[in-house]
Amino acid sequence: MDKLELIPLKNTIIRDAFWNRYVDLVKESIIPYQWSILNDKMEDRKSHCIRNFKIAAGRLEGEYSGVVFQDSDLMKWIEAVAFSLAAQPDEELEKTVDELIDLIGEAQQEDGYLNTYYTINGLEYRFTNLREGHELYCAGHLMEAAVAYYKATGKRKLLDIARRFADLICGEFSEEKNGRGYPGHQEVEIGLIKLYEATGDRRYLDQARLFIDRRGQKPNYFIEEMKGPKYRQIFNELNEYDPIYSQSHIPVREQVTAEGHAVRAVYMYSAMADIAAEYDDNELLDVCRKLWNNMVQRRMYITGGIGSSGILERFTTDYDLPNNCNYSETCASIGLALFGRRMAQITGESKYYDIVEKALYNNVLAGLGMDGKSFFYVNPLEVWPDNCIPKTSKEHVKPVRQKWFGVACCPPNIARTLASLGEYIYMHKNSSIWINLFISNRTHLVIDGKRVNIGIRTSFPYDGHVRIDTRCEASIRGKLYVRIPDYIKKYGLYVDGEEMESIKTDKGYCVLELDLSDKIIELEFDLKPRIVRSNPRVREDIGKVAVMKGPVVYCMEETDNEPNLPAYYIDTSSELVEYYDNDLLGGATVIKCIGKKARQDDWSEDMLYSDMDVKHEDKVLTLIPYPYWGNRKHGEMLVWIKEYIK
Amino acid sequence: MDKLELIPLKNTIIRDAFWNRYVDLVKESIIPYQWSILNDKMEDRKSHCIRNFKIAAGRLEGEYSGVVFQDSDLMKWIEAVAFSLAAQPDEELEKTVDELIDLIGEAQQEDGYLNTYYTINGLEYRFTNLREGHELYCAGHLMEAAVAYYKATGKRKLLDIARRFADLICGEFSEEKNGRGYPGHQEVEIGLIKLYEATGDRRYLDQARLFIDRRGQKPNYFIEEMKGPKYRQIFNELNEYDPIYSQSHIPVREQVTAEGHAVRAVYMYSAMADIAAEYDDNELLDVCRKLWNNMVQRRMYITGGIGSSGILERFTTDYDLPNNCNYSETCASIGLALFGRRMAQITGESKYYDIVEKALYNNVLAGLGMDGKSFFYVNPLEVWPDNCIPKTSKEHVKPVRQKWFGVACCPPNIARTLASLGEYIYMHKNSSIWINLFISNRTHLVIDGKRVNIGIRTSFPYDGHVRIDTRCEASIRGKLYVRIPDYIKKYGLYVDGEEMESIKTDKGYCVLELDLSDKIIELEFDLKPRIVRSNPRVREDIGKVAVMKGPVVYCMEETDNEPNLPAYYIDTSSELVEYYDNDLLGGATVIKCIGKKARQDDWSEDMLYSDMDVKHEDKVLTLIPYPYWGNRKHGEMLVWIKEYIK
Repeated sequence: MDKLELIPLKNTIIRDAFWNRYVDLVKESIIPYQWSILNDKMEDRKSHCIRNFKIAAGRLEGEYSGVVFQDSDLMKWIEAVAFSLAAQPDEELEKTVDELIDLIGEAQQEDGYLNTYYTINGLEYRFTNLREGHELYCAGHLMEAAVAYYKATGKRKLLDIARRFADLICGEFSEEKNGRGYPGHQEVEIGLIKLYEATGDRRYLDQARLFIDRRGQKPNYFIEEMKGPKYRQIFNELNEYDPIYSQSHIPVREQVTAEGHAVRAVYMYSAMADIAAEYDDNELLDVCRKLWNNMVQRRMYITGGIGSSGILERFTTDYDLPNNCNYSETCASIGLALFGRRMAQITGESKYYDIVEKALYNNVLAGLGMDGKSFFYVNPLEVWPDNCIPKTSKEHVKPVRQKWFGVACCPPNIARTLASLGEYIYMHKNSSIWINLFISNRTHLVIDGKRVNIGIRTSFPYDGHVRIDTRCEASIRGKLYVRIPDYIKKYGLYVDGEEMESIKTDKGYCVLELDLSDKIIELEFDLKPRIVRSNPRVREDIGKVAVMKGPVVYCMEETDNEPNLPAYYIDTSSELVEYYDNDLLGGATVIKCIGKKARQDDWSEDMLYSDMDVKHEDKVLTLIPYPYWGNRKHGEMLVWIKEYIK
Repeated sequence: MDKLELIPLKNTIIRDAFWNRYVDLVKESIIPYQWSILNDKMEDRKSHCIRNFKIAAGRLEGEYSGVVFQDSDLMKWIEAVAFSLAAQPDEELEKTVDELIDLIGEAQQEDGYLNTYYTINGLEYRFTNLREGHELYCAGHLMEAAVAYYKATGKRKLLDIARRFADLICGEFSEEKNGRGYPGHQEVEIGLIKLYEATGDRRYLDQARLFIDRRGQKPNYFIEEMKGPKYRQIFNELNEYDPIYSQSHIPVREQVTAEGHAVRAVYMYSAMADIAAEYDDNELLDVCRKLWNNMVQRRMYITGGIGSSGILERFTTDYDLPNNCNYSETCASIGLALFGRRMAQITGESKYYDIVEKALYNNVLAGLGMDGKSFFYVNPLEVWPDNCIPKTSKEHVKPVRQKWFGVACCPPNIARTLASLGEYIYMHKNSSIWINLFISNRTHLVIDGKRVNIGIRTSFPYDGHVRIDTRCEASIRGKLYVRIPDYIKKYGLYVDGEEMESIKTDKGYCVLELDLSDKIIELEFDLKPRIVRSNPRVREDIGKVAVMKGPVVYCMEETDNEPNLPAYYIDTSSELVEYYDNDLLGGATVIKCIGKKARQDDWSEDMLYSDMDVKHEDKVLTLIPYPYWGNRKHGEMLVWIKEYIK
């Protein structure tokens, strides 16, 4: 299929008021912070990750420590560094990575196998527990890191390491040798596809497709492999394993609903989209469409979060979206964005970016604290801190961002996502350019052999003005597709200061045919705050509303309001008043509105039930952007607010 | 302390329209059904319980099967049978139990030890894991069963077996021999106290007090015992054991909030109340009062359910009462009733029975299906069946009563509770009689050497008329205390047809001083349906109301209404219309009222969020008693209904 292309990451320099406060954290804070953790320099949170590599490489004596997929932390860190180096070279950092790659190379086995858990604990057990062993998962992250580092630096050493492992995997899991195995946690498919794209070696692509098409065939591989003589269970919580957990309950092409562990699901869907495009596989693309639709139309939070169940971090059923005990893992929303970007590239439809934007601006960003050193795994829409206590049904919900985790997947995933944000803005094909996100940046690409420079300047999402300029030394005819977000009801479009009266649109983009050599295109989006409701089939949100401004979901925090946030009612017939507060969290648009609050003072603390009435008193409600919550005084948070029906 | 006494169970014959449909199930259905399960006669749900005893007794070869506390199922069954025999002798059933007692005796060790799990799996491990081993828990149920059977039949064999084990426990856990151990799951304290009451042997009472006072002392016994050479962990889910789970986090006398596993908690509180009374221990009684108040004023559902968290079946924090993912185990409400009855006996305050009544009429009764063969462990207040799926955060919530469980604590517990319902109606002391519950029955007791007959006739809770008659061959002066429930705002009191103008009350009871030889006392309670609200500190219930009639909580079921019950709003300004439906589930009062429902048809199934309005349409809401839910077509259920504010 004729997939739209991305502009190479190194071409795009982001200088955006909203995003740079986060993007800059990657290099300033997250990368060095994680590096010290990977090297066990933090007293209270040892990763043992690099130590594991040193032991596997024979540089140290010792035992493996950490979870079975600890290697992937390092790979995601390298990938984030590579993305960062692409945008902003740094010799010292590159030298650190080069030394690290030497270590990784030493830990690799003669035959290409590379996984410190099994190398240290017994290579005879390798590939005997695909369900839990995560070797293919870690391999996928190795491949992604290798490709990113190669693209950023041109250096091939890590790429060669990854290829050697990939070659082993292609042999080990060929139709001839092992016609049945596939990964317990999808990810290697994405890695193999990237390796194919970087090297042109089609075996990797074919292997990714094999993994997808084997998945869920009967009899179930993960049940069968347990009968193997060397099978050893790793995770207690996977007793009574249900294959739906890993999307292996039925063949992938028969799947129509998003099921199981949410991160596994969206990583797989992303690979499926790539494979559909590469093989012109319309059947598979149709499966992707169905899964996407099921997910975003029935199983996704307004913040772009997915995974309603804390137990097994999984999808549940249509319209089941509890707000105070959901999982909505940061990594799952990252995977959702990866999937959506691919679907946009394949279809050219803007609706995919409506969701990508939603996920990035809300659930993904909320995962990172403004200090760059604290992270949410779980992203609830309603938090009552007193109630988030260990060993209860809400133990997975944390009211305060955590410094690090035993399972450290989210922090490096956020880092690599922010570091690659430049790849989310544009798509292009021939002489057409698509603009998906409104982030201030400068980039360039080559059309018909000519370098075209493009810039975006905007204060989006706090201001609806977007200014796009295009420059080229030669005159060049092109098409510019600008995404009109689904929440924009009206907008103005100006070319070189002149308002366009009739605007052509295509698949949710407005289309301009113009000479790109020296143009200024401006859009005026109406970004006034608005009231959003849930489908009444979502039981948890009936009688409630959310407040949004552009793609940003707003929330109430206890620090701006009074305790017991669910006792607030919003008067939706009154105006939502917004103002930009320069001092609030580095600058943010605050929204105020009027409403009521149920009076609890009339009720004794010792009276639980009564035929007494509950009275309401007038209140002003203060809301801030959802991604910013939890960065001040800790307390309650609430997205869905009761609506006061007068 | 001067504790009020219970009337012996065998004196009281219940003939009640509301209760007999459940009480009769015990003998007709539950006892034989459970007997066939205990004997592995049910193909798909083998208990192995009696088989374990046969193996331990040397009658069979084989391995232990079932959970570590499987023995207790048999003991609870015997206790239920004993209660049933007390009310209604049955030679054949008694013979069955006698033979069973022979088997139990054969399974007992020389030194008195009796537990099939450890006998079969290795006696050298006995008492090495008190935290999880449940030997003392099973011993407690043995003692309770033995006392009940002795009281019902006068036969001592099981009592002697229990005493031999109790003697061993008193030796093994004496201050001299093992000054630190106490049960991981409280229950033996209740058993020891009952054994003391039946035998007069004060060592048992002292041992119960020792267990209570050792609990929670530092260093924590359950953490210490793990260092023992023979310690072996049994339950995976008790990794990273937090002593709060078993109320051993701090000394019992320092506890002021209800914490941890709810069943453990209320079994312990019941024993504490007994001990406080026996030792005139006002300090301990005060702890009981605090724990009771914390529980019923801040941590109890309107149905008398306790335990807000599915994980570890435990208490969480004040006012945390989620309706669709709570635990509210049937056994926990049974324990709450046991505790409340003891507090009422000690204090003579009616408020304890307000809760006992609430628990019995709602959470306990809901645990049993009207077929006598299906049971709820978990008693939610809101159920959406599609969403109660395995391996999710709501996996513990079952939309349909289960036939039997791997952990089978609730079914026999319900059976013994219903079989002993007679013990909940009256209390007495000297020439005073207390009436706590309004259940049609006849009983007798001896006052000043004279037999006094008492009868109650009522259609409570569906009708507020209660007729009490007292008879005695001789003239006898006495006091009659009749509980005035907390939900009764007005009532009429008549003696021999004459209305009493001024009514003396004491601690929530109305008090009549009268000659008991031939009196008819009538009460007219106003039992009209009413609207009840939660304290606004209960976040989950803000903006919602419950409908009650007398002690009975009402609920909506999908079969009488439309799907998506949370979309209903009740108009609380309009009348609650009630009528008795003879054909509904053996007869029940149905309540209808008017309200609205959020229209979902305006919303496409594929549109999750929108700035569209949600419209409401007029509806009639139909409610039935909460304990009756789930006995017809399976579907949604809802207790707390949104209030429509016009």
